[in-house]
Amino acid sequence: MRTLRLVLSGLLTTLVGLAQAQPADPLPSWNEGASKARIVAFVRAVSERGAKDFVPVDERVAVFDNDGTLWSEQPAYFQVLFAIDRVRALAPKHPEWRTTQPFKAAMEGDMRALAASGEKGLLTLVMATHAGMTPEEFRQTVRDWLGSTRHPKFKRPYNELVYQPMLELLGYLRSNGFKTFIVSGGGIEFMRAWVQEVYGVPPEQVIGSSIKTRYEVRSGVPTLVRLPQVNFIDDKEGKPVGILQHIGRRPIAAFGNSDGDFQMLEWVTAGTGPRLGLIVHHDDAQREYAYDRKSPIGRLMRGLDEGPKRGWTIVSMKDDWKQVYPR
Amino acid sequence: MRTLRLVLSGLLTTLVGLAQAQPADPLPSWNEGASKARIVAFVRAVSERGAKDFVPVDERVAVFDNDGTLWSEQPAYFQVLFAIDRVRALAPKHPEWRTTQPFKAAMEGDMRALAASGEKGLLTLVMATHAGMTPEEFRQTVRDWLGSTRHPKFKRPYNELVYQPMLELLGYLRSNGFKTFIVSGGGIEFMRAWVQEVYGVPPEQVIGSSIKTRYEVRSGVPTLVRLPQVNFIDDKEGKPVGILQHIGRRPIAAFGNSDGDFQMLEWVTAGTGPRLGLIVHHDDAQREYAYDRKSPIGRLMRGLDEGPKRGWTIVSMKDDWKQVYPR
Repeated sequence: MRTLRLVLSGLLTTLVGLAQAQPADPLPSWNEGASKARIVAFVRAVSERGAKDFVPVDERVAVFDNDGTLWSEQPAYFQVLFAIDRVRALAPKHPEWRTTQPFKAAMEGDMRALAASGEKGLLTLVMATHAGMTPEEFRQTVRDWLGSTRHPKFKRPYNELVYQPMLELLGYLRSNGFKTFIVSGGGIEFMRAWVQEVYGVPPEQVIGSSIKTRYEVRSGVPTLVRLPQVNFIDDKEGKPVGILQHIGRRPIAAFGNSDGDFQMLEWVTAGTGPRLGLIVHHDDAQREYAYDRKSPIGRLMRGLDEGPKRGWTIVSMKDDWKQVYPR
Repeated sequence: MRTLRLVLSGLLTTLVGLAQAQPADPLPSWNEGASKARIVAFVRAVSERGAKDFVPVDERVAVFDNDGTLWSEQPAYFQVLFAIDRVRALAPKHPEWRTTQPFKAAMEGDMRALAASGEKGLLTLVMATHAGMTPEEFRQTVRDWLGSTRHPKFKRPYNELVYQPMLELLGYLRSNGFKTFIVSGGGIEFMRAWVQEVYGVPPEQVIGSSIKTRYEVRSGVPTLVRLPQVNFIDDKEGKPVGILQHIGRRPIAAFGNSDGDFQMLEWVTAGTGPRLGLIVHHDDAQREYAYDRKSPIGRLMRGLDEGPKRGWTIVSMKDDWKQVYPR
């Protein structure tokens, strides 16, 4: 029995090897150029058996930021737009919100006042709209929202505003034995509601910010309840910490777009052996948005200044991508 | 290309299917009986395509407690024995420990005084011996300890005192498409030091108790440092919480041995569709240890009383297992 399996396994490896010998372009939405060449060279270097830089499949771990790296993040993080819509939906039950900030600003769509409420204000909105239910209920709310709202500029559902070249990159890495993880400052359960379907990343490979949950038996039904308390912020120095906690080893490739990803790329690319660090630079006002050093959302300054010296690839959305969103 | 891959994949499925049609006994160390029959019936029910209770591969998630479920936990949790040995090794640098509890008790091997120091004393020992270094350094210390110490009763390395029937069960589940996770009250990094080699469980599928870590750049080197602060206790009500955090979905099978696993089994087996809850009952004083209701370590009371009514399988180590440890 064991022998038969081994033979079958060997046969498959050979056949797949033959099939892979003349692959079609795995990254058709990437223009030919230095960025694409570096990605392909890295993947070949670590996955071709016998290569000097070969990395065993187990250690082929790649981490992707989400906001601004896999999907858009303008005019505001999509999860913030979700929280604002939730405030409006829940407002009838909270008459006091009409006169309390930051709820008043959210209900009136006053983004300036909302921004003025700062991180604390944002956290207040999140706690009021993301807690008090089970994870299943929360995910359903997210899915309902994605199914019923449209992006103000592109008039498409938010989960269609994902980057086609990055979808191809996720698939290309996985077809070469990589395990792909999301490591985002966004909410872990907010992402788990839709990322498997869109990115092919299962819930156990999603790392994000989180609120606390409590286990309790409610009228005989074992239940997890989301609490209005911060558990973990998966941003900046938090990203390597979150990766250690969830993955337990240092990835060999990291993909980001803002200075919130700096420490993740720094830690990943400081490991021994071949490493790939890549930053998506939003320089495409025509097809998406152009922003970097001065943007309050997705600010990219240190990455632009230090990235190239550190050997990171800076991807120009404008020049490197044939296409931005899926058609 | 895509077509060729599909054909190959179909071919493999067929061949493996044929191979699986007449399998050798996948659980040779389990005696024939109700426990083994229930395990096999469950695995067949969820994995045979077309079966009424078929579960897609993605959702075949199984969680295993570690101490007392996959390896022994007497005369004390092995991680506590490790902490005691670390106190002794570090004692020359800490002359004050000679007169301070619980260090004095640890150095003198006074288990009664150590037990009297309670959970707080134990936590003090863990913080003094498990923090202050990088995760890599800590794991190396654990591996060195496993390579150089022997269990007082069995005179074997601790990581050989794993249960052969449970190793077979892990393999049987995986060969039927299950993803196997460890969900233990033990330290996540303590386990990651050796469980991949012994159980075939990769670090990203280990959930455990943890202390906090901090990311910092030390003399230009990006580093994670273990801090003497509790981050998460993965026991009792903490187990469903830890599973949600790491896996993000409810498993369909759970394996434990003590009341610390009660909530995990309760939550897992309360889901819809086929479920397997299983408790290893230590009733084998001859080949291992016999303990349950009155044991301070691995106490099992509620599980014995309520488990059978809840449809959980209570495994008798004495009667159900042909063999305890690997030869």
